[in-house]
Amino acid sequence: MKIFHCNVRVRYAETDRMGYVYYGNYATYFEVARVEALRELGVTYKSLEDQGVLLPVRHFSIEYKRPAHYDDLLNIQTSIQLQSPTSLLFHYSTYRLDEMLNTAQTTLVFVDAASGRPMRCPDDIRFLMEAVNH
Amino acid sequence: MKIFHCNVRVRYAETDRMGYVYYGNYATYFEVARVEALRELGVTYKSLEDQGVLLPVRHFSIEYKRPAHYDDLLNIQTSIQLQSPTSLLFHYSTYRLDEMLNTAQTTLVFVDAASGRPMRCPDDIRFLMEAVNH
Amino acid sequence: MKIFHCNVRVRYAETDRMGYVYYGNYATYFEVARVEALRELGVTYKSLEDQGVLLPVRHFSIEYKRPAHYDDLLNIQTSIQLQSPTSLLFHYSTYRLDEMLNTAQTTLVFVDAASGRPMRCPDDIRFLMEAVNH
Amino acid sequence: MKIFHCNVRVRYAETDRMGYVYYGNYATYFEVARVEALRELGVTYKSLEDQGVLLPVRHFSIEYKRPAHYDDLLNIQTSIQLQSPTSLLFHYSTYRLDEMLNTAQTTLVFVDAASGRPMRCPDDIRFLMEAVNH
Repeated sequence: MKIFHCNVRVRYAETDRMGYVYYGNYATYFEVARVEALRELGVTYKSLEDQGVLLPVRHFSIEYKRPAHYDDLLNIQTSIQLQSPTSLLFHYSTYRLDEMLNTAQTTLVFVDAASGRPMRCPDDIRFLMEAVNH
Repeated sequence: MKIFHCNVRVRYAETDRMGYVYYGNYATYFEVARVEALRELGVTYKSLEDQGVLLPVRHFSIEYKRPAHYDDLLNIQTSIQLQSPTSLLFHYSTYRLDEMLNTAQTTLVFVDAASGRPMRCPDDIRFLMEAVNH
Repeated sequence: MKIFHCNVRVRYAETDRMGYVYYGNYATYFEVARVEALRELGVTYKSLEDQGVLLPVRHFSIEYKRPAHYDDLLNIQTSIQLQSPTSLLFHYSTYRLDEMLNTAQTTLVFVDAASGRPMRCPDDIRFLMEAVNH
Repeated sequence: MKIFHCNVRVRYAETDRMGYVYYGNYATYFEVARVEALRELGVTYKSLEDQGVLLPVRHFSIEYKRPAHYDDLLNIQTSIQLQSPTSLLFHYSTYRLDEMLNTAQTTLVFVDAASGRPMRCPDDIRFLMEAVNH
């Protein structure tokens, strides 16, 4: 399984009064990680939307092991696979150097913007998913 | 000048590692305050947008005097006036009990969603602004 | 099981370019919902922290069924139970009128601020949890 | 006057239902820009705080000219100067390619974390400010 790497620097705005990254902000980090992984594959999420394909999140879960702090440089490792004909499964692991801070998953569903209904993964993306994980 | 009152409870997500409300989050509090002020006047911002009238912010400035903390119940006092035929000026003062924490202003411009160009303040809103400040 | 109700109005800041509440923002709504549920039981999260008891989130998962939109008035229904001697389990369901938008769970762990180590749920909170769910 | 450059990619989380970057999110971009400018000078904001020097924002103002959109790569140009013996003035201009989107200023005040009172700018930072702008 191909692993994509993405670095994110923790912003002051993202910390809370415990001095930790607020637990809800990882969702944004994973958005950045998956968008950059797709970009590395030649797919820009923005152009998908411009073509009328939305990719809303259907499921998100995260297991927090250790907190991240202000100014930490985080490395998010992401893998992607086709979960069903209409959905993608992303796995994420967040590291600070070689310390794992958390692991997470999201399921994203292909939705036709015009009809608002689920649609099959476009062929070019399906081929990419198959190619990248061999 | 009519003063509108709006209460906002500080969320954990909105604090930073100093234990203060992050300085950028007041923009959101003022959005809530002006939307509730307009609602009190019978104007819902959402229905304005649904009618093709956008109200983007042109200018924002804020003077921070004292920080707000987690779980504080803030009272935001808002006044509205027509600044020009195409823009509204909002003044805000944020209080915790009788302690003033900051003061701010925003200018919002009426924009026609279809053309993307500034437009005159709709008559009904102009009449409301004139009526409310007498 | 006692169900706590909490209303949250969707802010403009919380929407994204799909016109939906950004998927990561529900974490903040659930923070508000659990803090208000505890307050209803007589426990303020702030005073817990002031007494040296932290409650970081260990696990969070959410299943999105339908999106929320700008200005929606959401009703979040929350239940709380002791999951282990050192952790609380919260279940959330988000409604817009009688339409269920999503369901979620968080596990929060009692941590001693001084040592940074997990600690047993304080007795008064344990009694409350037992009392409230009878 | 030395100009520091910082690139920020617009995240989906930062857009709103108009499809623009939410007006309050620029405060976070400017935080990133000034922290990276200081880092380029050899000053990490985190280590300042660890030494007991806080730098809260006293004043913030921004003039919005054009909106930024999802996935835009923004270039923020920042200059720093000593405004008074106890405060720094930052100017920011946000560009997308050669199009200027907005200009802003923040005043930050040196505060002694122990006493909570304003303090003089530490000598090493004062020397840096003088050196960098010659």
